[in-house]
Amino acid sequence: MGKSLFVKDLKNMESALIFTENFLVTSKSVLKTNAGKPYLSLTLKDASGEIDGRVWDNVDLISARFGSNDYVSLTGSLVTHQGRHQVKILDIKKVEAEQIDPGDFIPSTPKSIDEMWGRIESLIASIGDKSLKSFLKELFSSSEIAKKVKTAPAGKVLHHEYIGGLLEHVLSVAEICDFLSKHYPEANRDMLISGALLHDIGKIYELSYDRAIDYTDEGKLIGHIVIGAELITKLEEKKKLLGKEKEMLLKHIILSHHGELEYGSPKRPKTLEALIVHFVENLDSKVGAFLSVLEKADGDEAWSDYQRMFNRFLYVKRDEE
Amino acid sequence: MGKSLFVKDLKNMESALIFTENFLVTSKSVLKTNAGKPYLSLTLKDASGEIDGRVWDNVDLISARFGSNDYVSLTGSLVTHQGRHQVKILDIKKVEAEQIDPGDFIPSTPKSIDEMWGRIESLIASIGDKSLKSFLKELFSSSEIAKKVKTAPAGKVLHHEYIGGLLEHVLSVAEICDFLSKHYPEANRDMLISGALLHDIGKIYELSYDRAIDYTDEGKLIGHIVIGAELITKLEEKKKLLGKEKEMLLKHIILSHHGELEYGSPKRPKTLEALIVHFVENLDSKVGAFLSVLEKADGDEAWSDYQRMFNRFLYVKRDEE
Amino acid sequence: MGKSLFVKDLKNMESALIFTENFLVTSKSVLKTNAGKPYLSLTLKDASGEIDGRVWDNVDLISARFGSNDYVSLTGSLVTHQGRHQVKILDIKKVEAEQIDPGDFIPSTPKSIDEMWGRIESLIASIGDKSLKSFLKELFSSSEIAKKVKTAPAGKVLHHEYIGGLLEHVLSVAEICDFLSKHYPEANRDMLISGALLHDIGKIYELSYDRAIDYTDEGKLIGHIVIGAELITKLEEKKKLLGKEKEMLLKHIILSHHGELEYGSPKRPKTLEALIVHFVENLDSKVGAFLSVLEKADGDEAWSDYQRMFNRFLYVKRDEE
Amino acid sequence: MGKSLFVKDLKNMESALIFTENFLVTSKSVLKTNAGKPYLSLTLKDASGEIDGRVWDNVDLISARFGSNDYVSLTGSLVTHQGRHQVKILDIKKVEAEQIDPGDFIPSTPKSIDEMWGRIESLIASIGDKSLKSFLKELFSSSEIAKKVKTAPAGKVLHHEYIGGLLEHVLSVAEICDFLSKHYPEANRDMLISGALLHDIGKIYELSYDRAIDYTDEGKLIGHIVIGAELITKLEEKKKLLGKEKEMLLKHIILSHHGELEYGSPKRPKTLEALIVHFVENLDSKVGAFLSVLEKADGDEAWSDYQRMFNRFLYVKRDEE
Amino acid sequence: MGKSLFVKDLKNMESALIFTENFLVTSKSVLKTNAGKPYLSLTLKDASGEIDGRVWDNVDLISARFGSNDYVSLTGSLVTHQGRHQVKILDIKKVEAEQIDPGDFIPSTPKSIDEMWGRIESLIASIGDKSLKSFLKELFSSSEIAKKVKTAPAGKVLHHEYIGGLLEHVLSVAEICDFLSKHYPEANRDMLISGALLHDIGKIYELSYDRAIDYTDEGKLIGHIVIGAELITKLEEKKKLLGKEKEMLLKHIILSHHGELEYGSPKRPKTLEALIVHFVENLDSKVGAFLSVLEKADGDEAWSDYQRMFNRFLYVKRDEE
Amino acid sequence: MGKSLFVKDLKNMESALIFTENFLVTSKSVLKTNAGKPYLSLTLKDASGEIDGRVWDNVDLISARFGSNDYVSLTGSLVTHQGRHQVKILDIKKVEAEQIDPGDFIPSTPKSIDEMWGRIESLIASIGDKSLKSFLKELFSSSEIAKKVKTAPAGKVLHHEYIGGLLEHVLSVAEICDFLSKHYPEANRDMLISGALLHDIGKIYELSYDRAIDYTDEGKLIGHIVIGAELITKLEEKKKLLGKEKEMLLKHIILSHHGELEYGSPKRPKTLEALIVHFVENLDSKVGAFLSVLEKADGDEAWSDYQRMFNRFLYVKRDEE
Repeated sequence: MGKSLFVKDLKNMESALIFTENFLVTSKSVLKTNAGKPYLSLTLKDASGEIDGRVWDNVDLISARFGSNDYVSLTGSLVTHQGRHQVKILDIKKVEAEQIDPGDFIPSTPKSIDEMWGRIESLIASIGDKSLKSFLKELFSSSEIAKKVKTAPAGKVLHHEYIGGLLEHVLSVAEICDFLSKHYPEANRDMLISGALLHDIGKIYELSYDRAIDYTDEGKLIGHIVIGAELITKLEEKKKLLGKEKEMLLKHIILSHHGELEYGSPKRPKTLEALIVHFVENLDSKVGAFLSVLEKADGDEAWSDYQRMFNRFLYVKRDEE
Repeated sequence: MGKSLFVKDLKNMESALIFTENFLVTSKSVLKTNAGKPYLSLTLKDASGEIDGRVWDNVDLISARFGSNDYVSLTGSLVTHQGRHQVKILDIKKVEAEQIDPGDFIPSTPKSIDEMWGRIESLIASIGDKSLKSFLKELFSSSEIAKKVKTAPAGKVLHHEYIGGLLEHVLSVAEICDFLSKHYPEANRDMLISGALLHDIGKIYELSYDRAIDYTDEGKLIGHIVIGAELITKLEEKKKLLGKEKEMLLKHIILSHHGELEYGSPKRPKTLEALIVHFVENLDSKVGAFLSVLEKADGDEAWSDYQRMFNRFLYVKRDEE
Repeated sequence: MGKSLFVKDLKNMESALIFTENFLVTSKSVLKTNAGKPYLSLTLKDASGEIDGRVWDNVDLISARFGSNDYVSLTGSLVTHQGRHQVKILDIKKVEAEQIDPGDFIPSTPKSIDEMWGRIESLIASIGDKSLKSFLKELFSSSEIAKKVKTAPAGKVLHHEYIGGLLEHVLSVAEICDFLSKHYPEANRDMLISGALLHDIGKIYELSYDRAIDYTDEGKLIGHIVIGAELITKLEEKKKLLGKEKEMLLKHIILSHHGELEYGSPKRPKTLEALIVHFVENLDSKVGAFLSVLEKADGDEAWSDYQRMFNRFLYVKRDEE
Repeated sequence: MGKSLFVKDLKNMESALIFTENFLVTSKSVLKTNAGKPYLSLTLKDASGEIDGRVWDNVDLISARFGSNDYVSLTGSLVTHQGRHQVKILDIKKVEAEQIDPGDFIPSTPKSIDEMWGRIESLIASIGDKSLKSFLKELFSSSEIAKKVKTAPAGKVLHHEYIGGLLEHVLSVAEICDFLSKHYPEANRDMLISGALLHDIGKIYELSYDRAIDYTDEGKLIGHIVIGAELITKLEEKKKLLGKEKEMLLKHIILSHHGELEYGSPKRPKTLEALIVHFVENLDSKVGAFLSVLEKADGDEAWSDYQRMFNRFLYVKRDEE
Repeated sequence: MGKSLFVKDLKNMESALIFTENFLVTSKSVLKTNAGKPYLSLTLKDASGEIDGRVWDNVDLISARFGSNDYVSLTGSLVTHQGRHQVKILDIKKVEAEQIDPGDFIPSTPKSIDEMWGRIESLIASIGDKSLKSFLKELFSSSEIAKKVKTAPAGKVLHHEYIGGLLEHVLSVAEICDFLSKHYPEANRDMLISGALLHDIGKIYELSYDRAIDYTDEGKLIGHIVIGAELITKLEEKKKLLGKEKEMLLKHIILSHHGELEYGSPKRPKTLEALIVHFVENLDSKVGAFLSVLEKADGDEAWSDYQRMFNRFLYVKRDEE
Repeated sequence: MGKSLFVKDLKNMESALIFTENFLVTSKSVLKTNAGKPYLSLTLKDASGEIDGRVWDNVDLISARFGSNDYVSLTGSLVTHQGRHQVKILDIKKVEAEQIDPGDFIPSTPKSIDEMWGRIESLIASIGDKSLKSFLKELFSSSEIAKKVKTAPAGKVLHHEYIGGLLEHVLSVAEICDFLSKHYPEANRDMLISGALLHDIGKIYELSYDRAIDYTDEGKLIGHIVIGAELITKLEEKKKLLGKEKEMLLKHIILSHHGELEYGSPKRPKTLEALIVHFVENLDSKVGAFLSVLEKADGDEAWSDYQRMFNRFLYVKRDEE
């Protein structure tokens, strides 16, 4: 069952109250007061942020009930200590992951996943080339892949770093490519749309996101670019839908979509469609990151904090209309 | 009056024939035959290419009639020497530039300049912000500027390097930005369209293109990025249409449109609109260059020659349908 | 009226005493003691450094009298808390900026501004070329520009980062160029001196420095290099003193003085005078930064702290004679 | 049947003689003499170099018998023209590729391929880990792969650019790794040897080498690094010999063996074994290239020509003992 | 006399106890308790780590006995304060450096220095070229140099950063080069071994390591690469053992062993032996650093912390056998 | 005896004449006429340029008299062939190097070497620090060093690439440093002047310049930066004039004068004097190169050819006064 009280809510409160709610414990240690009495110091997290927690009594007993990285249900009250909010915990116990709605613990896209998925299906349906269309249908009809494409984030830090972020990014890239296939009629629309839809497909295995977004071992050692190409290789090996040349051109789009070797692409774009997918995915990633910065801007300041991804400060003043 | 016989045509001919036609002389020198007799060696050029020319008789007399970089009208026949085509010149005289159609001597866009100009005007008309709209109208109503925007190339070598190329590129960038203003509703459409239309405006003074496309002194010492910003400064100084903030944001788009300092932008994009214009103009330049390569490909080879702009070979095989 | 007691003085004191003095409040927040009593925590600043301040009583009343970034006059005593100095504030009220000597709050050059300004005027008087000389006289006779050139810093962090720093740097560069015009007689002395005097003129609008040195919006979006070139453009547009070629060569010096594109110059030096101004201004900036490090060195250590501007440690041991 | 007379031999001859021998035609065009008579100008090539060929009579008839890139058998004599050697062709006809020994047309390793293959098999036999050993045996028992591994070059230009070069390089890398597995006992010998043997396996499909060494389309669009990883993926998908972790670690060695992203590796080495394979393969490639330069040095000069791969001149003076 | 109780031991203890032991004082300051009573706050260090120390009584008297950077013998007990270990000091006095075993205060190689030195001597004995062999014998027979080569670390931070680390690294590089002289018989074994043994010789004066490893002034201003070359120059000037050419080739190996100018080599490798030494020393440094990371890994985590030297996370999971 | 007729003179002549003059033969080969008769084709060089030479008769006999890279005295006449000048040689014989004035064959500074040397001596005389002064006097009193400093070029291609160029450059750098020692009184004038005078001293052994300027083996393998530092080391080892610290600081200036590692300095400037020498020597090298370009400019063109050293075109238009 979903949460009703979030960390963000607690931080906006002034007075204390007793509540029961689920959190993820991200750090846990036993410390001692000046008087030498042990207490439990926890960091509690959900999709909206982090807050400190303290258990002052029965520390040994309670500490044995859960570990760091466990979900817990706790009953407690809100206090402030040296200007910081803190949860004074009265009771706490472990909760199994199955009972948890992951969307409560990792930020999610505000958009409708079903609606976006529908637009992806329409794009596939619009592909004229039969072999590309059947290949895409086959790939996305795998329930494992479809489920992951619908929920995966597109990154850990840089852009679209939330549940559904991959779907959002892929759809955006594909729809811009759809427009550009009319603007640049020399481009092969079918290959362009297919490449756009598949360019980041390897991210479904590069990132894990059950409690927090992180890289998998495979993500760190192989990377989404090669994982994506291998998904094509394996399905084509089994189904023989594309033929050698289209398989090669499709994988080339995936392999080259970062544009330059130093950004992790083992090949730079050498086909018109690969060139376009690269530029559009770069545009959409950077605009996505800029929009996140804009969203966090409070409207009072003309300039954002320093943005590592951009290596600069951004101008976030918007017209007041 | 326009040309009817081009260098390209001559190069496709086998046999000799007598003709009269206009050319641009791009090099001229007096050499001697093995027998010690002087002759005139010329390079003749038009929009379609270059060919050698020779005057064998009356060299002193004829040589005095014109210089290098002059337009000439000549009567001659076509011969081949060691496998190369050559024009054997019987008579030749200078022609004034006014009598020449520049489009015969510098390659031109195949698109209709008037039709493209009409779409630029529609885009300006669609701008909602009154100060931006009047500023653009004022700028483009200058007959000097309008004339140059309609004819200037967008570059000397890299992309859109022909008469009308600037107009073609600017319109393409602006129309993609128009689409993206719907795709990313957070962007300010008026500023985006204005920035797209003006980002390369400085090229009208950076390049000269009466006989061949070349950089002006101002182009080499100041550059189109700063020339463009100064056009805004001067018009705003005179007409006060934008106000300080919009002037600053518009110039920021121009100054930052190359994206990185090392590509000649004194500032990197710090507004959402500047970011988008930068990516779109980069996309359109590179796609424009790729399309030129595709056009030159003869269809037999899968790969282009080495492309300096891309620093790689390009895959130019197209589906045969 | 100027300050007599500075933060630096307070930090050198051991015992407490009651004093009344002006400070700039750079942060202000209401916190609570362990006992739950609210108190005011301030950061107090002047040209010599920063110190904490605390108001323990009548917090609501007193807090309403001023905000962050206000100048205040306060009465208090000096205490130490956990080894840190702190001002225990007894009374405090806002002071208007007009009553403040900015030199008390931003570090200033130790040199005489009038004497330096006189040397600038002598250099201008020594220019032989009439159009360059009248242009410079016209520009520096503007009271707004003259006032700003006399007071602006040359940077926020890197070098000459104090009131009068721009004047100091520009004069130093111009006097070295004066020497070099004799050492390299091929250089055009008039253009060299003019370029030296104007190369950083855009900094007068790039930086604001009323309470602290910071970049203006224009500084961040346009930058001093282009602002400087535009000051030339606007004055020449109005007065027509230089003519097209000299205007272009003078602006080229400004635009290229950072030497390389990646340091923010949209053009690299292509004239002899631009090349010399670039090297001299680079030398003077780096020597200026080295001298600041030397000044801060206490004489006991052979090596400075790590210097970000130089990306290395510097050897600051000086001969003891 | 193999060649007995090579281009290199012809170039060392002074006088003319009549001979019959096979060559590869690498360019072919019909030109005209000053007198207007057509003749056939050919470039003839074998493993030892290139030489010009001319057919002076019956050009139409003879020209129809073969095309550029065909193997031919010709009868002719050696002449010199303006200091250059030339083959005067009396008769010429096409020869099918099957009748040709490719080693005559592409340079080959001087080492015994069978002996080297035997050492590869010994290394595989010495692997202790059963799953790695069976995987390698399975892979190298494919007759297509074994044949290609035995004959492929390791590059087109840079190093080991001859038939058998890949085998030579792979064996050298694996034997150095064998030594290093004792020198650094912390390294996993089985994984190290396996990675060394497979690091360049993708080159068997990256390069074609039937008439000359060149990149395949797959080589240019996918590249040997990813092709190599995919060979592992496909075999493991079919045979399930490695298990997920070993498959990942083995592919990581292949993907990271160029060491840095900018050299085309989509991942940098993150395991000890990948780190060692990267350094050893880099050492062996560079030493291989240096040895080729040494071999070409004539002993009179202390310095080589400028070497593009090293971006420098090399010192090739050897002790005379 | 050596230490028996190390900081690491103290940090693993829970309860308090009275002990007497030597430490290095690395920081010392007099602070005041909230009650205003002065106390001495020290940082105590040995090869195993750092711990806080406090003197609560007779501060003036005791503080006068020693300074920061002195070795001390102290009697005290272990307490914990806010979860941190702290030594409560009852008595403390200065100890002269001569009475200290430096190995107690700087980490040392676990390997036998005498055994490694013996292998260095065997390698020298195996050199065939008489002039190289006598030069090396002469150099290593200097008692100052021999003593320093046996004890110096190979670096301050990056790799082999402990007493004996230089010897360990140099021996490893030389033994790999010994193997490679057989693997690549074209290399001159005598020059290769000599270069390997001397490549880092300048480090004996680049680093000081009596209390902690640090750079000397000479290390920072001249650097081990040039110091090393000058050691050769000086000895050769005195003894004339090598002759001009061998001196030059040997120094070239030292000067070029970092491989690229940007890594501090004033020349890149241009001889075969210099090339091999460069690659092997790079391999051994990086493997050495990787092994340190492996050693610190606790076995529970598959991934190391972020490694600055590698600019990445490393995979440290080892097989459990 | 010096030359009176130079290649440059011959190239400005139209008609033929018989003359006898010295040249350097830089290439020599025996070719055959179309008629099959052998002739000798030579390249003849002096300080002013290169010209072709031909011997048509007695080729065997004459060819045996001299080789490539020999000086020759020849008698011949001037002819033109296909628009190129050529010397038709009637008689030719070898001349020993001792009879040649090298200044006729390598370009020389137009300035007086004695006058420049005098200014160097004055600068040394003006040094206040006794140990630096005696060290410099000792070094420059060596007749070998003095002779080489007076004649060496400062480079092969980039700047001051002529006899006396090193002296010219060193004097210019030292005189600018003399001025700057007054402008920046914090700098140690004695160290600054000494560093300026010695920064490039290693070039006397880096370059050979008897027939043409070229790098020596030592120049390529060790380089002028380290050679220069070693000259200091050796003299100090013998004479003990500087003491350890001044020796170190002086060598640091030499080692760091290229400013950045990637330009071949093994250390970057870390003292004030090293920083200033670096900037001044960079300025003087680049200005020197710019002045060479200016000198070659013919006055008609505003722009130079592409300059590799600057990686750009230079504006060479000078005021006509």
